[in-house]
Amino acid sequence: MKYGALPLTRLIEQFASLPGIGRKTAQRLAFYILTLTKEQAQEFAGAILDAREKIKYCSVCRNYTDQELCEICGDPVRDKSTVCVVEDAKDVAAFERTREYRGLYHVLGGLISPMDGIGPDQLFIKELLQRVQEGTVQEVIMATNPTVEGEATAMYLGRLLKPFGVKVTRLAYGIPVGSDLEYADEVTLFKALENRSEL
Amino acid sequence: MKYGALPLTRLIEQFASLPGIGRKTAQRLAFYILTLTKEQAQEFAGAILDAREKIKYCSVCRNYTDQELCEICGDPVRDKSTVCVVEDAKDVAAFERTREYRGLYHVLGGLISPMDGIGPDQLFIKELLQRVQEGTVQEVIMATNPTVEGEATAMYLGRLLKPFGVKVTRLAYGIPVGSDLEYADEVTLFKALENRSEL
Repeated sequence: MKYGALPLTRLIEQFASLPGIGRKTAQRLAFYILTLTKEQAQEFAGAILDAREKIKYCSVCRNYTDQELCEICGDPVRDKSTVCVVEDAKDVAAFERTREYRGLYHVLGGLISPMDGIGPDQLFIKELLQRVQEGTVQEVIMATNPTVEGEATAMYLGRLLKPFGVKVTRLAYGIPVGSDLEYADEVTLFKALENRSEL
Repeated sequence: MKYGALPLTRLIEQFASLPGIGRKTAQRLAFYILTLTKEQAQEFAGAILDAREKIKYCSVCRNYTDQELCEICGDPVRDKSTVCVVEDAKDVAAFERTREYRGLYHVLGGLISPMDGIGPDQLFIKELLQRVQEGTVQEVIMATNPTVEGEATAMYLGRLLKPFGVKVTRLAYGIPVGSDLEYADEVTLFKALENRSEL
């Protein structure tokens, strides 16, 4: 695709380098940028630089923050005895949307995946063990995805944490609310049956 | 959605303000930006500012360019007697991809649409008439979309251009190459039948 105008081609290429953004969408977004006022374009560019420069890991839970502690770890009202272990910061956002969980989090920064060459050392596991060692944590909830890697990571962490005498739990398996039984896979349905509760 | 970190929230909001980018995608893109190196982030931000500042309209055809003339208008090899009238710069890109058209373009910057309050005065119609008036143009191809607005704009321009003595043509209607007749709408099929050519 030729545009003559190098700055436009460059912008399209930048958008196309984003995950999940194809050539056509990148073109549409770049053309949209051209319709912005100069101030709006500066705000957009500034937001990119600002986020990249100011956002770092929370020193406790490894969630993203622009402070020393993230807002959740720094909140005196949150229950410091419960830690929910998640794969990445997006999962923290998902749990926060439920508005039900009042404990803290620990972001692993990935899952153990020998296929992709990711071992325990590349994740924030040492930091989790250190938090548990400090003594305030009583329960660690394994909230990794219900995939092979998620399960393996949860199992691995469970074994590491048991010696510290903390309670280690795992998210419940079952049928998703609002779903159709007809489309539930066998394993999920079996788990839902096995873990049935009294009405 | 709460992230504690203001720079991150701001970046997510910026991405979400782009057309066709929802909240979830904006979040995914913002998280991706955090994984870039500082240089990559600067390059991205720079591309936005650069495009917004340097890209302007070609003084002849109103396509986007960073020069006085766009690459197509400035190309001595292109056939200056034919002008293809399109709605916006994306359409120029589409025609250029065919690598078959050797004439010039004229970008209207929209279509006449009384429903959206867009009249002929908001489009680059005056500029088109001026080009035709200069005398080198012999054929004007109406290449607006085959929609109500596209048709109306083509008809309107056709009437305006006829007095100048130029040939005014319209893109052919017919069945798209590679499509299935079963799914063609009645009007398209009728047009394809009507404009059939000898084998």
